[in-house]
Amino acid sequence: MTADITPADLRARIRRAEWTTPTSGAATGFLQANLVMLPKTLAFEFLLFCTRNPKPCPVLDVLEPGQTEPAIAPGADLTTDLPLYRLYRGGKLTDEVTDVRALFGDDTVSFLLGCSFSFENAMLAAGLPVRNIAEGKNVSMYITNRTCRPAGPFEAPLVVTMRPMTPEQAVRAVQVTTRFHQTHGAPIHMGDPAALGIPDLERPDFGDPVTVQPDEIPVFWACGVTSSLAVTAARLDLVVTHAPGHMFVSDLRDEHVAIF
Amino acid sequence: MTADITPADLRARIRRAEWTTPTSGAATGFLQANLVMLPKTLAFEFLLFCTRNPKPCPVLDVLEPGQTEPAIAPGADLTTDLPLYRLYRGGKLTDEVTDVRALFGDDTVSFLLGCSFSFENAMLAAGLPVRNIAEGKNVSMYITNRTCRPAGPFEAPLVVTMRPMTPEQAVRAVQVTTRFHQTHGAPIHMGDPAALGIPDLERPDFGDPVTVQPDEIPVFWACGVTSSLAVTAARLDLVVTHAPGHMFVSDLRDEHVAIF
Repeated sequence: MTADITPADLRARIRRAEWTTPTSGAATGFLQANLVMLPKTLAFEFLLFCTRNPKPCPVLDVLEPGQTEPAIAPGADLTTDLPLYRLYRGGKLTDEVTDVRALFGDDTVSFLLGCSFSFENAMLAAGLPVRNIAEGKNVSMYITNRTCRPAGPFEAPLVVTMRPMTPEQAVRAVQVTTRFHQTHGAPIHMGDPAALGIPDLERPDFGDPVTVQPDEIPVFWACGVTSSLAVTAARLDLVVTHAPGHMFVSDLRDEHVAIF
Repeated sequence: MTADITPADLRARIRRAEWTTPTSGAATGFLQANLVMLPKTLAFEFLLFCTRNPKPCPVLDVLEPGQTEPAIAPGADLTTDLPLYRLYRGGKLTDEVTDVRALFGDDTVSFLLGCSFSFENAMLAAGLPVRNIAEGKNVSMYITNRTCRPAGPFEAPLVVTMRPMTPEQAVRAVQVTTRFHQTHGAPIHMGDPAALGIPDLERPDFGDPVTVQPDEIPVFWACGVTSSLAVTAARLDLVVTHAPGHMFVSDLRDEHVAIF
């Protein structure tokens, strides 16, 4: 069962290129993370962007320049232990690669940001519907009309994920996800999509549309894709990120970063 | 009543040097903050230190280099609106001054960090004892045997505040302060001081000793003085901080930064 594999075993399989697919559902209960690698010259401004926008960009770990072994996964190597990386040059996606050893330098700083897989596990445990999982789809993501607080060259609209549920389930979902403030936390909106500038739920900007039942409302959470838009906007010579869904799997349990 | 003064009026009085005393108890219910000003060259490492040690160093706001007006208090000026500043040169306290306009440059970055005054208000509102306030003393602070995660030249032992209460009250205090994760949050320890390497509660490293009743246990919270020790350890040419108790008073209400 991939759900039962340990994070260290999963990372070893990824490093040996025996695992090249998304990490959703693997090593269930362990914290997965978004990755951003960029030069030290812009590390302060990017960390500031994350600090100013903690709901979409919750910082789990930041490594010293040139270091590849994160504190939240001793023995891991961020240049080899993700299944797929994306390279952006001048703000454009140019490549997807399976390791970035050759691109990593002494001045490269790696950021690990929280991911909503953690609260999806918690919602399932609470008996709440996670429609994207139930329908075997990627979660629906939308670019909103809300702007993040910029920092240096980093700026982005807030991107959200959406999961439909009844109002009663939404109350419980607020309670459950509030605990996970390091993995996007409580919803930022529920109900009318137009209030976020979203014209049509059936046409997400990223991911897949999911079914919304007549008695359900859409519930919106801040999304880590916001950080990808921010690094794209900065048009750096080179930025490395994970490919969507191909996350870094840490040794920390989701529960370890819950606030209570 | 100083408790009822608005933050803007309090800052104006401070700026005109009509208020030069500590800010504890003034503009009750509004968020007060620790201040650290240092050069841009070390801003990433200091923000990283705060990110890695969020309990003692919760970041409320970070300003662009050369800027003095924080987002959490429009119209304010961080170089004039604190009652008393401390200057550290080469890691040594050299001066206390009432404004730092002449020392502030285009490359100076200002950090505002959360302060426990916010949760003291919340504890009083919940009917919990805050012994230092009841006895008219400065809170007891201790240097512990726990070390913060370092970042660049910044390193420090964890400093804690202590407030005595019954075990039943301590349970409630955990609940109340958990909400305030941006102002030190839940306790980091309760009970035996020796577990933190504290030999004698009656001899705090900073502040005053307070009375501990026979049915009470000491409850310990992470303390913002940790950040002062970290900047001292870095021995920079010049660092500006607030003087203890002489905080920056923002326009945000304590409740605005509560997690739920």
